[in-house]
Amino acid sequence: MKQDDRYTRGLKKLKEIDGKAGECLIDSLKDIAPDLGRYTIEFPFGDVYSRPGLDLKSREIATVAALTALGNAAPQLKVHIHGALNVGCTRQEVVEIMIQMSVYAGFPSALNGISAAKEVFEERDSKGLS
Amino acid sequence: MKQDDRYTRGLKKLKEIDGKAGECLIDSLKDIAPDLGRYTIEFPFGDVYSRPGLDLKSREIATVAALTALGNAAPQLKVHIHGALNVGCTRQEVVEIMIQMSVYAGFPSALNGISAAKEVFEERDSKGLS
Amino acid sequence: MKQDDRYTRGLKKLKEIDGKAGECLIDSLKDIAPDLGRYTIEFPFGDVYSRPGLDLKSREIATVAALTALGNAAPQLKVHIHGALNVGCTRQEVVEIMIQMSVYAGFPSALNGISAAKEVFEERDSKGLS
Amino acid sequence: MKQDDRYTRGLKKLKEIDGKAGECLIDSLKDIAPDLGRYTIEFPFGDVYSRPGLDLKSREIATVAALTALGNAAPQLKVHIHGALNVGCTRQEVVEIMIQMSVYAGFPSALNGISAAKEVFEERDSKGLS
Amino acid sequence: MKQDDRYTRGLKKLKEIDGKAGECLIDSLKDIAPDLGRYTIEFPFGDVYSRPGLDLKSREIATVAALTALGNAAPQLKVHIHGALNVGCTRQEVVEIMIQMSVYAGFPSALNGISAAKEVFEERDSKGLS
Amino acid sequence: MKQDDRYTRGLKKLKEIDGKAGECLIDSLKDIAPDLGRYTIEFPFGDVYSRPGLDLKSREIATVAALTALGNAAPQLKVHIHGALNVGCTRQEVVEIMIQMSVYAGFPSALNGISAAKEVFEERDSKGLS
Repeated sequence: MKQDDRYTRGLKKLKEIDGKAGECLIDSLKDIAPDLGRYTIEFPFGDVYSRPGLDLKSREIATVAALTALGNAAPQLKVHIHGALNVGCTRQEVVEIMIQMSVYAGFPSALNGISAAKEVFEERDSKGLS
Repeated sequence: MKQDDRYTRGLKKLKEIDGKAGECLIDSLKDIAPDLGRYTIEFPFGDVYSRPGLDLKSREIATVAALTALGNAAPQLKVHIHGALNVGCTRQEVVEIMIQMSVYAGFPSALNGISAAKEVFEERDSKGLS
Repeated sequence: MKQDDRYTRGLKKLKEIDGKAGECLIDSLKDIAPDLGRYTIEFPFGDVYSRPGLDLKSREIATVAALTALGNAAPQLKVHIHGALNVGCTRQEVVEIMIQMSVYAGFPSALNGISAAKEVFEERDSKGLS
Repeated sequence: MKQDDRYTRGLKKLKEIDGKAGECLIDSLKDIAPDLGRYTIEFPFGDVYSRPGLDLKSREIATVAALTALGNAAPQLKVHIHGALNVGCTRQEVVEIMIQMSVYAGFPSALNGISAAKEVFEERDSKGLS
Repeated sequence: MKQDDRYTRGLKKLKEIDGKAGECLIDSLKDIAPDLGRYTIEFPFGDVYSRPGLDLKSREIATVAALTALGNAAPQLKVHIHGALNVGCTRQEVVEIMIQMSVYAGFPSALNGISAAKEVFEERDSKGLS
Repeated sequence: MKQDDRYTRGLKKLKEIDGKAGECLIDSLKDIAPDLGRYTIEFPFGDVYSRPGLDLKSREIATVAALTALGNAAPQLKVHIHGALNVGCTRQEVVEIMIQMSVYAGFPSALNGISAAKEVFEERDSKGLS
């Protein structure tokens, strides 16, 4: 497989997960670190998210859980809460992931995860998204 | 609901996820911190894992992802790789969670997650478990 | 003990530590994750903070230290700086905890802890609190 | 104050907290990084632990809490569990700090903290220490 | 060496790395924790940065990498991106450190590192700094 | 560029950094997660380490600093201490990186980094490596 194919496949996958975030990402990096933009399309989305063996909804559950537990990547957590909802998670399932994290990363991580979810839900309400 | 019911429900849930780990946990804490043993049954398993709204397999995916990303709780990661397999994840799905974590927590976390999975798979092979 | 009693005891304990934060917490979660609000009252405050064996001031010292070291939970750190002061810590003791954390989590954690303390102290000055 | 005085004061303070750990530290660093050994005596013990404003027992509570929450420094956690006990904490107070950390850093951190405490308590039992 | 000399040497070193940040630091701490301000000059800058054995540019590369990977100290990361540029790193080298961190701490850390770099570069553009 | 070229380039780069670690990695993953082995060659080594803009020695300084600060990836830290020495760092420079990390991630991270360095240096002594 050629590198161009990885990029094309990654861009398609990222659009499936969160079209707007994909555009923002490429745009924000184009002047300062365009190669990092390209890598972010190619490796996470072109390679990893495009793999069989774990469905896309489960991949987003894993990602939302990890980012909530780490607690140091608020912008990406919000992108992936959107992503989880876009690929089939319900809002209740997102909330349950946060509650689950209270056990493994403590209550502050869970509460800050809920704050992020709240912002995402309100943004989606204003756009009529589920 | 009475506290006794939370404990009973939690113990049942923990046995469903990983019976042996449950016994080890209670046993290891009984002399030094029996109340922490009781809380671990009551809150994570009696309250959180017993909730509707997210199926048990998805809860274990979230947990394995978070513990792999945090990278500082090897014994618990192994317990929950067992747990994930016990509640319906395939080995390939566990491996995919680790690969997914290379994106969000870096390659060392993913590689150390795979090492933990390898140990768990070998232990299960020796016992004829899937 | 019935669950209702854990909630009542937890709410009372949280009010002792930081009455306003307790109300904010319950209020902020009531639409999105009311059960997480309930758990946060029941387990941390109804179970843990209500235990004998370590006095409340020492519990808050432990919490402020941990949140400063982790460095990823700014809102909760501020709540517990208030809490520490409410249950008997002096401002100087809070500052000393931050200085102590320079050793165990590095100078950035300590300096960001001091920034949080400064905001809390100014808020309390404006309300005439010690 | 001269640097020599900071070292002398730090060594005395470290011996008060954990005499054996102090010797091990200096010994283990003398060939590879003697200056780091010296700094570790001077800054943490000569400067920070020697400060007024927070008593030694409270400083050790803060340290044990932070190292349990971070979960990535097992040898130092054990040194400071010894230290906490040497400067006036009871074993029960150490256990309570670990239980407190289940709230702020999750159950795995608390359980691994208890494992460290168990090892320390057994080592002290074998030496007739409280 | 007397302590005064460590302070003087540290202040000189900090000015070499980032003069403005040094003034801000001392100023921000002077009311609340002046001793932490003094320690921050003495130990990191008077002791560590003043050591031979690793050139200043390499020390700043190490610091920018670590703060990007930890992801929980945004103000200090920006100070040290300035510092790296002040002691001889090119902007491209700073960007490469961030890309390197995608491997060891995940893409969110790298992307948030790039955001910090972007803010610093724009601030420097407005002041005609390289 | 074709994917095969990324793999070939990555393998060559990894051999330049640490030939033995490269073989161990591929070997340890071949049964359980061969694709993760391939990705680890392709992205970190074929893409990132092969970039111009930051010399290989500086990349290893950044990596050793980050892994020491994170403190949760001991095997990879040792691989990259070897790597740093293989691409031109002196032992003293490795030690200085650890000392530098005492400032940004605390003394326990620095001390555990020194322990890892000590093991690597002894292994290299036994093989007559610098």
